[in-house]
Amino acid sequence: MPNAAHARLKARFARIAALNEAAGMLHWDASAMMPPGGAASRGEQLAALAGLAHELLTAPVVAEDLAIARADGIWAETNLRLMARAHARATALPTELVEAAARANSACEKTWREAKARADFALVRPALAEVVRLQRETAQALGAALEMDPYDALMDGYQPGIAAADVEPVFAAYEAFLRDALPRAEAIQAARPEPVPLPGPFPVEVQRALCRRLSARIGLDYEHARLDESLHPFCGGTPEDVRITTFYDEQDVAKALLGVLHETGHALYERGLPKEWARQPVGEAAGMGAHESQSLIVEMQACRSDAFLGFLGRELREAFGGPAEPYEAGNLARLWRRVGRGFIRVDADEITYPAHVILRFRLERALIGGALDVADLPAAWNEGMRDMLGITPPDDAKGCLQDIHWHDGAFGYFPSYTLGAMAAAQLMKAARAAVPGLAEALAEGEMAPLLGWLRAHVHGKGSLLGFQDLLREATGKPLDPADFTEHLTARYLQA
Amino acid sequence: MPNAAHARLKARFARIAALNEAAGMLHWDASAMMPPGGAASRGEQLAALAGLAHELLTAPVVAEDLAIARADGIWAETNLRLMARAHARATALPTELVEAAARANSACEKTWREAKARADFALVRPALAEVVRLQRETAQALGAALEMDPYDALMDGYQPGIAAADVEPVFAAYEAFLRDALPRAEAIQAARPEPVPLPGPFPVEVQRALCRRLSARIGLDYEHARLDESLHPFCGGTPEDVRITTFYDEQDVAKALLGVLHETGHALYERGLPKEWARQPVGEAAGMGAHESQSLIVEMQACRSDAFLGFLGRELREAFGGPAEPYEAGNLARLWRRVGRGFIRVDADEITYPAHVILRFRLERALIGGALDVADLPAAWNEGMRDMLGITPPDDAKGCLQDIHWHDGAFGYFPSYTLGAMAAAQLMKAARAAVPGLAEALAEGEMAPLLGWLRAHVHGKGSLLGFQDLLREATGKPLDPADFTEHLTARYLQA
Repeated sequence: MPNAAHARLKARFARIAALNEAAGMLHWDASAMMPPGGAASRGEQLAALAGLAHELLTAPVVAEDLAIARADGIWAETNLRLMARAHARATALPTELVEAAARANSACEKTWREAKARADFALVRPALAEVVRLQRETAQALGAALEMDPYDALMDGYQPGIAAADVEPVFAAYEAFLRDALPRAEAIQAARPEPVPLPGPFPVEVQRALCRRLSARIGLDYEHARLDESLHPFCGGTPEDVRITTFYDEQDVAKALLGVLHETGHALYERGLPKEWARQPVGEAAGMGAHESQSLIVEMQACRSDAFLGFLGRELREAFGGPAEPYEAGNLARLWRRVGRGFIRVDADEITYPAHVILRFRLERALIGGALDVADLPAAWNEGMRDMLGITPPDDAKGCLQDIHWHDGAFGYFPSYTLGAMAAAQLMKAARAAVPGLAEALAEGEMAPLLGWLRAHVHGKGSLLGFQDLLREATGKPLDPADFTEHLTARYLQA
Repeated sequence: MPNAAHARLKARFARIAALNEAAGMLHWDASAMMPPGGAASRGEQLAALAGLAHELLTAPVVAEDLAIARADGIWAETNLRLMARAHARATALPTELVEAAARANSACEKTWREAKARADFALVRPALAEVVRLQRETAQALGAALEMDPYDALMDGYQPGIAAADVEPVFAAYEAFLRDALPRAEAIQAARPEPVPLPGPFPVEVQRALCRRLSARIGLDYEHARLDESLHPFCGGTPEDVRITTFYDEQDVAKALLGVLHETGHALYERGLPKEWARQPVGEAAGMGAHESQSLIVEMQACRSDAFLGFLGRELREAFGGPAEPYEAGNLARLWRRVGRGFIRVDADEITYPAHVILRFRLERALIGGALDVADLPAAWNEGMRDMLGITPPDDAKGCLQDIHWHDGAFGYFPSYTLGAMAAAQLMKAARAAVPGLAEALAEGEMAPLLGWLRAHVHGKGSLLGFQDLLREATGKPLDPADFTEHLTARYLQA
C-alpha cells in the first residue's frame, strides 16, 4: 500500500512538526516572558517534547513505511526524501542522549545569562563543558551513522548539503580580502566627514511603535505576528504565528530598528513558506544559511541601501524630531554603515562580520573535534580576535560569552551567518536585474517588488531545493562569494 | 518487580505532566499573547500534545505495571491509586475523540471571542453545538467505563469524588436561603448610607503596579510568577512558573485589584503544592472545588474582611490620592460588598453568585443529558435568570455568552465555584479558631499567619486527601454549607 504508507508518514510528520512548534513557542516564552524561577520546569517540558518527537521520528514503522511509500510529483518525492534524511539523523541518536542534551542546554542557557551579566566565564564553564561533551557525543554518533565528519554532521543539521570543506576555502579567501579591504575601508571612511549623531534619547515607547510600523510597512502581517523584547533578539514561533524580538536602547535607536528589520526578514520567509506543505519537511525553510540570506537581504541589502535610507530618515525624523541634517541619507549611511574593529558580532559592520564568524567556526570545530578544551576557550578566543582584527576583548562578556548559541547547544550554526550574507548579495544582484524599478520602490519605502521576487524564488520553494540549487535556479549559478565582495567593494571601497 | 514497575509509572506520569505543563503554557499564551491569526496552528499544537499525553496514559503497559506495582507509605500508595484512576478515565476515551474535542474547543473558543464582542450567539452556535456533541460523547464513554452517570463522570474530572447527587440538595437549600436572604440583604443595604465612589479614573500603569505589589505582599513570589492581561482573567502556568492574568478598567480599580487577589489565591495554592511529588498525580491540587476555595479564602474571606479593607484603603489612597473618606474601610465595604441582582457572574456579590452557578449547573446537566439543545440555550438561560434573580439579560453577551467555559469545552466545572465558596468559609472559620492574631495581622495587610495554616492544611497536602477528607482533617467535619450561610448572615444580614 504505497499510498497508505505515504499518508501515514505525512500524519506522523505533521504531529512531529506540531510538537516542534510547541517547543518553539516555549523557547520564545523562555526568552521573552518567563520569570527566572521557571527555568528548571521549562527544561523538563522541553526535554519531554524533544524526547517524544524523537521517539515518533525513530519508530521502526517509519523505516518500513519509507521503504514502500511512493509519491507523485517532485514536491511529494522531495518530502519523502527529507523524511528519510530526518529519520536517519534521528535514529543515529539514542533518546537518552537527546533528552540529556536538551536538559543540559536549558540549564547552561540559564547560567549563561548570569555569567554574561557578571562577565564571569568560570560561572558557566562547568555547564558549557557538559553541553560540549554531549554535542561531541551527538556529533560522533551522527557522523558514524551518516558516514560524515562529526562536525560536518552537526553543520548538516543547520544547513543541509554544506560541509566544512565547502566553507573553508570561501572563508580563507574572505580572510585574504579582509586583510586588504579593511584598512582601505577605514582610510576612506577617515577621509569623509564625521557623521552627525541622531538627536536622542529615543523613548522606548516611540521606538516600539516605529519598529512595529516599519516592519508592517515592509510586509509583516501582525494578524500573524508579535514583536516583543528579549536579551538576544531572534525570530521564533511558527509560520502562522511568528514572533520577533528586539532589545531597546534609549541612547541608540539603530540597535532596535535595524534589528527589527533583520528579524522581519526572517519572519517574512516563514510567512511565505508553501502553506500546502505546512508541517511537512518539504514545506520548511531550506536551512539556516538560506534563512539568514532572507534577514540580510532585507536588513543589509535593501534597508541599508542609499535608496531606502532616504525613506528611513524621513520616518525617523517624524518620530523623533529635530533638525534635518542628521536624518539625511548620506549621514545615515555614514552612521549605520560605519566600518570598525569591534568586539561584538551582532554590532559588527558588513566587512568585519565574517571575521567574527570565521573565528567561531574555527573554535567550535576545534571544540567538537576535541582539539580545544572549554577551559581554554577564553584565551583562544582572544588570540583569534587579535590575529583577525588586531583587538583584545577587555572581558569575556565582550568575548566568548557574548553569544547565546554555544550555551544553548548550537554548534555548526555560525557558518550559516556568512553563507547567508553571501547568498543575500547574490540574490539581491539577481533581483535588481530581474525586477524593474526595484531601487525606485525602495526609495519610497516600498518592499513589495523585492518581496514578490523573493516569494517566487525563495520563500515559496520551501525545502524543495537544496541551498546550492536554490541559488542556481534563482540567480543562474551556485554560491559565488564574488557577488558579496563586489557589493562590499561598491559600498565601502569607493573613495 | 513491584518497585521497578512503580518507578516506570512515575517516569511515565512525570512525562505526561510535562506535556500537560507545555499545553498549559500554550493555553496561557493563546489568552494573553497570541496574535489572532495563530489560532488554527495553536489548535494543531494543543491537539498533538493532548493526543500524545492520552497515548502515554492509555498504553497497555500502564495497566500491567499498575497490577504489580507496590508502594510504601500513604503518599506513594495514593499516587498509585490516582494513577489507576487517571488511566481508567483515559482508556475510556479513544484518541480520535480526545483530539477532535481539543480541536473543536480551540475553534469554538476563538469564535466565541468574536461572538461575545458582537453579542451574537448565532455566530458561535454551530461551533458550540460541535463542542457539546463531543462532550456528550465523552461523558457517555466515561460514564459507561466508570459506571457513573455521564454528567457525574465529567464533574469527577474537575472535582473528584463529588457527584450531582451531592450538589443538588446543597444547591436546593441555598436557593431557599437566597429567596429569603436576598430581599433582606437588599433592604438592609438600602437603609445604609450610599457608598462614595473612589476618585477615578485609575491609570492602567498605576493599577498594574499596585496589583503586582499587593499580590507580592500577600505572598506571591515573582521569581516564579507573571501578571499579564487577558479577556477572561485566570491562573495558569505551572507550580514553578505560575501565570495570573487580569483585565484593567480605567473607570473601576476594583475589577482588576480584587480579581488579582482572587487569582493570587489560586497561584499560592499551586506554589504551595508538595515539591517532592511534583509532576505526580498525588502532588497535584485536590480538584477545582479545592482550588476555588483557595482563591475565595484569599479574595472573599481575607481581603474583603473589615480588617483587610482598612489596609487596602491606605494602599489605594497612596496610589490614587484624593480625600480620605472614600478610602475608609466602612465605605470600601459598602462599595465592594454591595449586594445586587446583576447579569454577570464574575461581577456578582457573594450572595447572588451561587445563583449564577446553580443556573449553569442545571443548564449544562440538561445539555449533556440531551434534554436541552444548544439552539434553545439563550431562552433557557434568560428564563432561569428571571426565575432565580428576577432579571432578564438585555442580550446574550450579558447572558449565555458571558463565560468562556462551555465554549472551551468545560462541562461539569461550574459547581466547583460554589463548592469552593462554601469550603472557603468553612476553612476560614477553622483558621480563625486555630491561629491567634489572624484578624489583627490582616488589618496590617499581613497574610502570613493565614497562609501558613493553609500551607500546612491544604496546599502541602496535594491530592493526598479527597475534597471531603481534606475538609475533615482541616476543620473536623466534611463540607458543611452552614458555615457559608453563617458567614453571609454575619456580613450581610445584620442591620
